[in-house]
Amino acid sequence: MKLLYSPFSPFARKVRIAALETGLQDRIEVVPTSTEDPASGLSARNPLNKIPVLETEFGPLYDSPVICEYLDTLHDGPKLFPAWPERLAALRRLALGDGMLDIALAWLGERFRPAERQSASHMALWESKIRCCVDALEQEAAALQADRFSIGHIAIGNALSYLDFRYADLHWREGHPKLAAWHAAFDARPSVAANPPVDDR
Amino acid sequence: MKLLYSPFSPFARKVRIAALETGLQDRIEVVPTSTEDPASGLSARNPLNKIPVLETEFGPLYDSPVICEYLDTLHDGPKLFPAWPERLAALRRLALGDGMLDIALAWLGERFRPAERQSASHMALWESKIRCCVDALEQEAAALQADRFSIGHIAIGNALSYLDFRYADLHWREGHPKLAAWHAAFDARPSVAANPPVDDR
Repeated sequence: MKLLYSPFSPFARKVRIAALETGLQDRIEVVPTSTEDPASGLSARNPLNKIPVLETEFGPLYDSPVICEYLDTLHDGPKLFPAWPERLAALRRLALGDGMLDIALAWLGERFRPAERQSASHMALWESKIRCCVDALEQEAAALQADRFSIGHIAIGNALSYLDFRYADLHWREGHPKLAAWHAAFDARPSVAANPPVDDR
Repeated sequence: MKLLYSPFSPFARKVRIAALETGLQDRIEVVPTSTEDPASGLSARNPLNKIPVLETEFGPLYDSPVICEYLDTLHDGPKLFPAWPERLAALRRLALGDGMLDIALAWLGERFRPAERQSASHMALWESKIRCCVDALEQEAAALQADRFSIGHIAIGNALSYLDFRYADLHWREGHPKLAAWHAAFDARPSVAANPPVDDR
């Protein structure tokens, strides 16, 4: 299978971590793909023109949660998408981690605008939402630690890594010692350490 | 179960359609909830401060795809989330429909900014993405018609309804007769007709 991806995309990073966790990395050929190059053929595969896209025997597949769920059907190891009711927390955490990334990316896009087109109120709202999420995750850190590793853990850990990468000035670990300890263990997993965030600037 | 929702949210509309399709509407109490009222308690249930949220015996559940998948476990009728491999197209279409909504909402937020803070290049990009999605869906209309009704159909139909509602000037039906015919049938479903888009302006 071909994975259209960018080394700069945190959503693609989640898929690559999932591929290693499920032992499927050798069945996946990664194809660096730009969302800004019309010749990439990306929009013909995903009309949203987003990466990652996985080319499967059933056609192109997106977005990253769907790719991860599909990969999870292709192996016999511990499942990243558990059965109900454990599935509920895993999917909710997946939505939370990906939702944090959506906010962080919107915020980043705002920062990249010319100063006169930026909206201070939007940026303040996004910062407050990210801080609210980190506060909530500190309350959930013990459960994250106790629960079996799932796609929810990958999404939460990946989102926090992205904060380190793009928003180090938030100092999200301050006041959140349990979450910081959980994330340190996440970062040490071989699947995570093998896929560090990459800077495109 | 309580569903924290807004009549103006297209994501909440998707859940309400799914509730009717699965026959669960009488087990769900809808609670109008503002994302802008700190007293609503929304952010304590979903730190992303987004609706919809479903209060379940397992705690608050989000986002809308997760709520729909959970509801789908609570009934014995035809499943909105089918088994593999049919599940693949259903989930991909769910991602496509929700992705269109994400773009449409970002675009709407841009339109609501003061004129001097708007970005013409962002709005042009969002419009081109929406048009690319509608073109792709015209190619897929026959398959949408042929495949068993799923959460993917709800998401696609709901996204197109939102274009009618907020972006009537796009005239998305022009040049897309198969998709228009499919959407007319979607709109006539009792679950959809019972939940028309609502204007908050």
